[in-house]
Amino acid sequence: MFSHLETPVPLVDLDRVERNLDRAATYARSHGLALRPHVKTHKSARIAAMQVERGADGLTCATPREAEVMQAVSGDLLVAYPPVDPHRADRLAALAAGRVTVALDSLHAVDTMARAAAGAGRTVHVYVEMDLGMRRVGVASAADAVAIARRAADAPALEFAGLAFYPGHIRQGVGDQDAALAVVAGEVERAVEAFTAAGLRPPVVSGGSTPTIWRSHEMGPVTEIRPGTYVYNDRTTAVIGACSWEECAFTVLATVVSTAVPGQAVIDAGVKSIGREPVRGAPGEGFGALLDRPEVTVRAMSEEHGILDLSHTSWIPRVGERVRVVPNHVCVAVHLFDEMIGIRDGEEVERWTVAARGRSPAGGS
Amino acid sequence: MFSHLETPVPLVDLDRVERNLDRAATYARSHGLALRPHVKTHKSARIAAMQVERGADGLTCATPREAEVMQAVSGDLLVAYPPVDPHRADRLAALAAGRVTVALDSLHAVDTMARAAAGAGRTVHVYVEMDLGMRRVGVASAADAVAIARRAADAPALEFAGLAFYPGHIRQGVGDQDAALAVVAGEVERAVEAFTAAGLRPPVVSGGSTPTIWRSHEMGPVTEIRPGTYVYNDRTTAVIGACSWEECAFTVLATVVSTAVPGQAVIDAGVKSIGREPVRGAPGEGFGALLDRPEVTVRAMSEEHGILDLSHTSWIPRVGERVRVVPNHVCVAVHLFDEMIGIRDGEEVERWTVAARGRSPAGGS
Repeated sequence: MFSHLETPVPLVDLDRVERNLDRAATYARSHGLALRPHVKTHKSARIAAMQVERGADGLTCATPREAEVMQAVSGDLLVAYPPVDPHRADRLAALAAGRVTVALDSLHAVDTMARAAAGAGRTVHVYVEMDLGMRRVGVASAADAVAIARRAADAPALEFAGLAFYPGHIRQGVGDQDAALAVVAGEVERAVEAFTAAGLRPPVVSGGSTPTIWRSHEMGPVTEIRPGTYVYNDRTTAVIGACSWEECAFTVLATVVSTAVPGQAVIDAGVKSIGREPVRGAPGEGFGALLDRPEVTVRAMSEEHGILDLSHTSWIPRVGERVRVVPNHVCVAVHLFDEMIGIRDGEEVERWTVAARGRSPAGGS
Repeated sequence: MFSHLETPVPLVDLDRVERNLDRAATYARSHGLALRPHVKTHKSARIAAMQVERGADGLTCATPREAEVMQAVSGDLLVAYPPVDPHRADRLAALAAGRVTVALDSLHAVDTMARAAAGAGRTVHVYVEMDLGMRRVGVASAADAVAIARRAADAPALEFAGLAFYPGHIRQGVGDQDAALAVVAGEVERAVEAFTAAGLRPPVVSGGSTPTIWRSHEMGPVTEIRPGTYVYNDRTTAVIGACSWEECAFTVLATVVSTAVPGQAVIDAGVKSIGREPVRGAPGEGFGALLDRPEVTVRAMSEEHGILDLSHTSWIPRVGERVRVVPNHVCVAVHLFDEMIGIRDGEEVERWTVAARGRSPAGGS
């Protein structure tokens, strides 16, 4: 299997990617939602271009480097990360993209971004990020959110552009979905009312994650969605029922290097190739599973070793045999590699650089 | 604190590194042990050169790229990873280093390495890896180990050079150290006897890890140690008592980006900067702790967010404030960055590339 490639190496099934992108584009279009995919999952201009070709209305980034790389692909970038560090704000203000929006959740971040934008002589758009249950970032009260929006609206170099939230606490197939979505929808409605009453009607209401992607239209006045993982999917997305196993497009090709200990086999992909991410939101042991034998999981790892659990399979692996691992969390696994191998029908068809990986200015190291 | 740097960014305290290297070099010399540090922790020619300057007898690598980068620093490289993948074996056989040794644990790996070495017209040395309780790789029986050594000794392009094991299952301060060391010492003795009886007396007995480093001389006929983590240390090494907190030389500098949720603060370093590694071998919550406030741990993470647990501190962080995180497992955190910032006395003094990160041939991307 892919005998010309040295392992461990990441494979991207481009036929599956295209189907995943088409499905999301069709969904967004049919519900009148703007689709602004998050590039953190693939960090690749190659894949971002496929998203834009299919009608993405812009791209979402987390880091300055992601934005620097992606401005070659789209002129409309959202950086969904608060620009608290002034160096970060300066890099965002220096972007050449036609429209740059940042999502933030504090007066401190507004002021930092306002200074950087004014210094660069440009306008930066601002979404105010609210916390609707994720308990990570985002302001909890509509009154605080309105105060931040007001500060942005009053800053000469900023323009208030909308309201953002991330429903990452809702996992497909976990708990009472209908109730959780109704709660979020109600909170978004009330937030929009509070902004509107303050004379700051949000032009955009940006929400949506991969686990909730197919129910985004039920989240009240949401106008825009920002899924990331849907492009490749992963074991967690499959386990929680937000994709099928056949929609998993990313695998790490690995070689069995030892079968010395009964009941297990050791592969040459460990934490430094797969990442140590748990299945979240559903029961699931291990850190990944084999594409062709999902009952075989990566039970334990060290840096360059993965231990396959053979207790639920009749498969008897041989030293030298190759396997493909679907990681639990693809965004973390992609971040571990510099280059992706694109495949179709079991053959390599192209390679591309994960150009938005790393932190230094794009064009630098 | 380091206000000229954009966060998240990795800092290496070079004064601490020098003390860590000096201590290990003195220990090895005083016990007549060869010191062959594992470069997986730092992946940097800069640090490897400091190790060689202090008398390291060679270097240990895991990946072909590590070996390709490190051959500029040392002419004596051990690749402590079985060359089962033929591409991997070919890259090792093509190394320019004067002496290349591989550790392996199967006849399959012997044959693969023998073919590659013969093809390259060179001799490769072989350690046979035994399992003394780690249950990862390594053959369990001395008879099987001798058979592998025999196959290597008989291959024209290979030379049997020793016995290797990794006592990673013994953690400083965990369980009955004395008993565990005595068991390992006894097993190593018996293995050496079995090899010697078969006419294959091992010139080198290579063992030793960072957690056991200061007791390596108690492990029977060990002649060589291969510690990796000791150069930087990390929260796990400190928690298990194998180093002091003041010997932790690696931190990730991060910025507080949100204090919206009571009882926690959010920093801009998450899984993609710190890694999601548990404390192993001792109780310890979270994924890292603050250098200046070890009672504050990174309780949870997403890709670019870390959640600080403030329940054991009177510290009230402000948005924009900076902190330094000691990760649980430094080898995994280093692998996430392309460049290190060297500091002394709280000031940046140099930068270097983590050149052995990644998988492609050194000199390529």
